[in-house]
Amino acid sequence: MQKKRITILGSTGSIGRQALAVIAGFPERFQVAGLAAGKNLALLKEQARRFRPEMVSILDPARARELEKSLFGKVKVMAGEQGLNELAGSSHAELVLSALAGSAGLSPLLKAIDAGRNVALANKEPMVMAGKLIVSRARKKRLSIIPVDSEHSAVFQLLARRPRAEIRKVILSASGGPFLRQKPAELEFATASQALRHPTWKMGRKISVDSATLMNKALELVEARWLFELKPDRLDVIIHPQSIVHSLVEMTDGAMFAHLSVPDMRIPIAFALFFPQRPELEFPSLDLAKISSLEFERADLKKFPALKLGFAALKAGGTLPAVMNAANETAVAAFLAGKIGFQQIVKTVAKVMAEHENIEPENLDQVLEADRSARRRAGELTGG
Amino acid sequence: MQKKRITILGSTGSIGRQALAVIAGFPERFQVAGLAAGKNLALLKEQARRFRPEMVSILDPARARELEKSLFGKVKVMAGEQGLNELAGSSHAELVLSALAGSAGLSPLLKAIDAGRNVALANKEPMVMAGKLIVSRARKKRLSIIPVDSEHSAVFQLLARRPRAEIRKVILSASGGPFLRQKPAELEFATASQALRHPTWKMGRKISVDSATLMNKALELVEARWLFELKPDRLDVIIHPQSIVHSLVEMTDGAMFAHLSVPDMRIPIAFALFFPQRPELEFPSLDLAKISSLEFERADLKKFPALKLGFAALKAGGTLPAVMNAANETAVAAFLAGKIGFQQIVKTVAKVMAEHENIEPENLDQVLEADRSARRRAGELTGG
Repeated sequence: MQKKRITILGSTGSIGRQALAVIAGFPERFQVAGLAAGKNLALLKEQARRFRPEMVSILDPARARELEKSLFGKVKVMAGEQGLNELAGSSHAELVLSALAGSAGLSPLLKAIDAGRNVALANKEPMVMAGKLIVSRARKKRLSIIPVDSEHSAVFQLLARRPRAEIRKVILSASGGPFLRQKPAELEFATASQALRHPTWKMGRKISVDSATLMNKALELVEARWLFELKPDRLDVIIHPQSIVHSLVEMTDGAMFAHLSVPDMRIPIAFALFFPQRPELEFPSLDLAKISSLEFERADLKKFPALKLGFAALKAGGTLPAVMNAANETAVAAFLAGKIGFQQIVKTVAKVMAEHENIEPENLDQVLEADRSARRRAGELTGG
Repeated sequence: MQKKRITILGSTGSIGRQALAVIAGFPERFQVAGLAAGKNLALLKEQARRFRPEMVSILDPARARELEKSLFGKVKVMAGEQGLNELAGSSHAELVLSALAGSAGLSPLLKAIDAGRNVALANKEPMVMAGKLIVSRARKKRLSIIPVDSEHSAVFQLLARRPRAEIRKVILSASGGPFLRQKPAELEFATASQALRHPTWKMGRKISVDSATLMNKALELVEARWLFELKPDRLDVIIHPQSIVHSLVEMTDGAMFAHLSVPDMRIPIAFALFFPQRPELEFPSLDLAKISSLEFERADLKKFPALKLGFAALKAGGTLPAVMNAANETAVAAFLAGKIGFQQIVKTVAKVMAEHENIEPENLDQVLEADRSARRRAGELTGG
């Protein structure tokens, strides 16, 4: 069997590292074509030596030279945003895993699609910003976008080969994050380290904060709309603190299908890497008798206003989801830098969204302009 | 759209009546071709007048004449086992719903298959007795056997269009029946009326007792083996008292898919009637947030020895499952007649199974001989 060639954008991040761990377990199935990282030179070096890609890229141009030397000129080294974009489109990969954080992933994602690569998508922000455009470009080239988010991977698997007319609803589960049991008043003084302490998933910093505000689920609603081409009213959210049921679909006869697994990102990552096959993984089986009870509750939109914003952005469409995403990225960065309190994150996003004049964008530039303007405004509001 | 013509064997029983209720809701989709009942003349008359089948059959020949008169000669009336078999094979139905109770359904089931009819199967005993034979005959004629049991309907839907090589395990859920929380000592004096009080499902008497002993699940294990052509070691059982998760399948990557719905037999019945389409039903959606928690526990093989017998019959194959089924039918009848206590049901089955010399049957006669001999022996043991 020919090895599948994989390029990883964001190889030193949480998803990137876990993807390489999966790949390392199946040396006969995969070969790394390209690796792109942000700042972690030491780890990128180590990854490049171990997995021997054809090319690597590092965001900081100052470190490119050192990287090149340490790889003895055997690997093509690129740098900066240009390097990242080039690697996304030019490596000889059959699948590009986009595991970058935030909106920075949009441009390389489009490059990969335009170059005809199937995409495993762990980076939800680009889909929130420009999902319609991304999906239509991928469809035109008959490319697959395989979600890596556990919820969307679940939905992808649940919808597979089922006639769309049979689907009544897609329900994303949300763990509720570390503050599910806190009173709203207590959240006023929540610290970054508390917000980063996710109860069920080990993740990067940005997504961990998004999980604490539930903005992550708001973004996922919009992402799901485009990924699965669903009307906004087909989407819903349910709180499931254990993160075992990753999503559900309700059928026209009232029956539901659910996807369950232990909360380990290597499962959806492996699913995306192996797709259209399903891997044989040696995870312990999910022992439901031991787990004993799967718990669900309604999402409290008052306590988690981010979710309310998410439904509003989902329904409104246009540039509003991009604005929500941009304001959120800016506000989360301000929170992590200690400039604003936890509750200010969503308040900032709400304000920027309320001020935004929504339009149906005709091209990417209009999306990017909405994004920039939202960042500027959120920056002002957070004293940036 | 042409109406789908349905014949119902066992139309006055619990499943038969619910099937007619579903059909009554979709007069533009279905037409009743034939109805067969046991003793309930009054109800059969009413059904025949309302649904105007081409033919009906009643088991008691003495009542056939009255039936004929009351239908003014507009419907062909048949009687006895011969009538039932004839109706199963000769009505102009596209789908025969087999909703008879116990092993009595075997012969008409084979008649329907031999006549080239797709089958909706609510009657599990024939599959336990002669599943291999039934499935191979249906396969040869490229007929569908669509299970109506909620668990098997769930598995059927969960396995649909998924490569068999991706399936690690099929897990049938079991409510645990009315005695799940009773101590074994208390079961010694359990009465028929207690055993018939199923916590989640309204069902016929025989299957209700089988649910109390968990023999129903034992039979379902064997049924699933043949229906889905699974190796015995791929099957397992989990206790789920709420009867909302109807079954689960575990995939090779450790993920699981589950099928959930409110416990209402009209859902799997409608699924089977509409297959390969999925109906639009107006049941209230399953409100998981309101249900709040889905509970699971390990099946206690000591407390419910029927399950142990089921796994043994599943593994051994041959005529042993038919023997288990026959001894159980006899013992349940004795229990319902007040001749033996609740605990004696499974003890009788265990003894008859232990005494049986298992063979791999080469034809149906050998199966029927094992069935008869098990009934005889169980009759002796229960003072019949």
